[in-house]
Amino acid sequence: MADQLTLGLLGGTGPQGRGLALRFALAGHQVLLGSRSEERARSVVAELFERDLPVKGVANPQAAAEAEVVLLTFPFEAQRAVLPGLAEAIGDKVVVDVVNPLGWDELGAVMLDVPEGSAAEQAQVLLPRARVTAAFHHAPPRLLADPDREVDTDVLVVGDDPVARAVVIGLADVIPGCRGIDAGPLRLARYLEGLTAVVVSVNRRYKIHAGVRITRLSEERRLRLAPPAAGEEGS
Amino acid sequence: MADQLTLGLLGGTGPQGRGLALRFALAGHQVLLGSRSEERARSVVAELFERDLPVKGVANPQAAAEAEVVLLTFPFEAQRAVLPGLAEAIGDKVVVDVVNPLGWDELGAVMLDVPEGSAAEQAQVLLPRARVTAAFHHAPPRLLADPDREVDTDVLVVGDDPVARAVVIGLADVIPGCRGIDAGPLRLARYLEGLTAVVVSVNRRYKIHAGVRITRLSEERRLRLAPPAAGEEGS
Repeated sequence: MADQLTLGLLGGTGPQGRGLALRFALAGHQVLLGSRSEERARSVVAELFERDLPVKGVANPQAAAEAEVVLLTFPFEAQRAVLPGLAEAIGDKVVVDVVNPLGWDELGAVMLDVPEGSAAEQAQVLLPRARVTAAFHHAPPRLLADPDREVDTDVLVVGDDPVARAVVIGLADVIPGCRGIDAGPLRLARYLEGLTAVVVSVNRRYKIHAGVRITRLSEERRLRLAPPAAGEEGS
Repeated sequence: MADQLTLGLLGGTGPQGRGLALRFALAGHQVLLGSRSEERARSVVAELFERDLPVKGVANPQAAAEAEVVLLTFPFEAQRAVLPGLAEAIGDKVVVDVVNPLGWDELGAVMLDVPEGSAAEQAQVLLPRARVTAAFHHAPPRLLADPDREVDTDVLVVGDDPVARAVVIGLADVIPGCRGIDAGPLRLARYLEGLTAVVVSVNRRYKIHAGVRITRLSEERRLRLAPPAAGEEGS
């Protein structure tokens, strides 16, 4: 999983996208930071990233077309508008939906009603050929953005294609303090997205930037029972 | 929170109820292990608990009537049938819904469709005067049952009454390896219940009994920002 990949972050100019872009670039991946406006993407990259980091600001369609792995880091509202026009360019690539479909009211955060069950399942409907996964919901943007701090969270990865899950677990593993964990089928994405509302609530109460850890999972066991990466599929 | 409480575990003869009963009794609480059948409750207690532990097998109505705090540890299917007949006895007591409304199919565990949003919100509808909370969803029964092992999980507590949340956080804190965490309003129970499907999926893949930890929450901060216990309410 140490291979260098070209990663396209669609809607990557928000806090989650910028933070992930930084961490992936620091780990040596090529990052295409996409936005609806190429100008906006370029100015965010020029402003926030050191010149020698492999991050390039591009329009979303270019990020979708040139990336090997596509991450969806736009707000939930944008997903249904943006994805249909990119389905052709994305094709059967591995897609990581990072979107948390959250709303806010006087009680705090709550998950929005998504007819497909979750943002990730909606993405799968809009990108029928793609190998959609969901992950990185609970990686705090504030910590991702600060390379001097450990992110200190497990990254629960769901998806129906085991090779795609293995790719995303590999992406999580390059971020210091993160561990990618295989959490099973894509339909469980709704609970990962909903858990973000709980994490937000805990953060507000205790004034922290919490992550989530799975206990009793040793590193030896995690690596031994990881899903098979491409080329190790056996059959 | 070190006060001794009388705890009634309704449907407490299953794995989760027995495990919690053991841990609470070891911590010095009085436990009424309830079952639909008093005979069944008595025989489970006689068989599984040391004679000197403060655990007594009773019928559910007696547990509901005599307890200071009521825990719901029956299977989800039983909740709607059992609670209406106990609403009078439970009154405005603190209730802890431990129920995970899960179903199973070829893909693994999934949360059942609960019209009220979650098992805990259903319990609140059936017990309109009670101070309903939800907690202990992710405490592995196998570990609860073995007093020589640490349970190693945070206990995320939700509920709309802050004093009730404080009581339940206190109950979590007496179990070695557990920490009670204030996670906010009762409506977030649906995500805690759903998260159990993710934990079950992780357990199956890695062959572990996982718990869930919130990271970056120090003990000092957790205790300082806990919800006010009864008598500390200020006004």
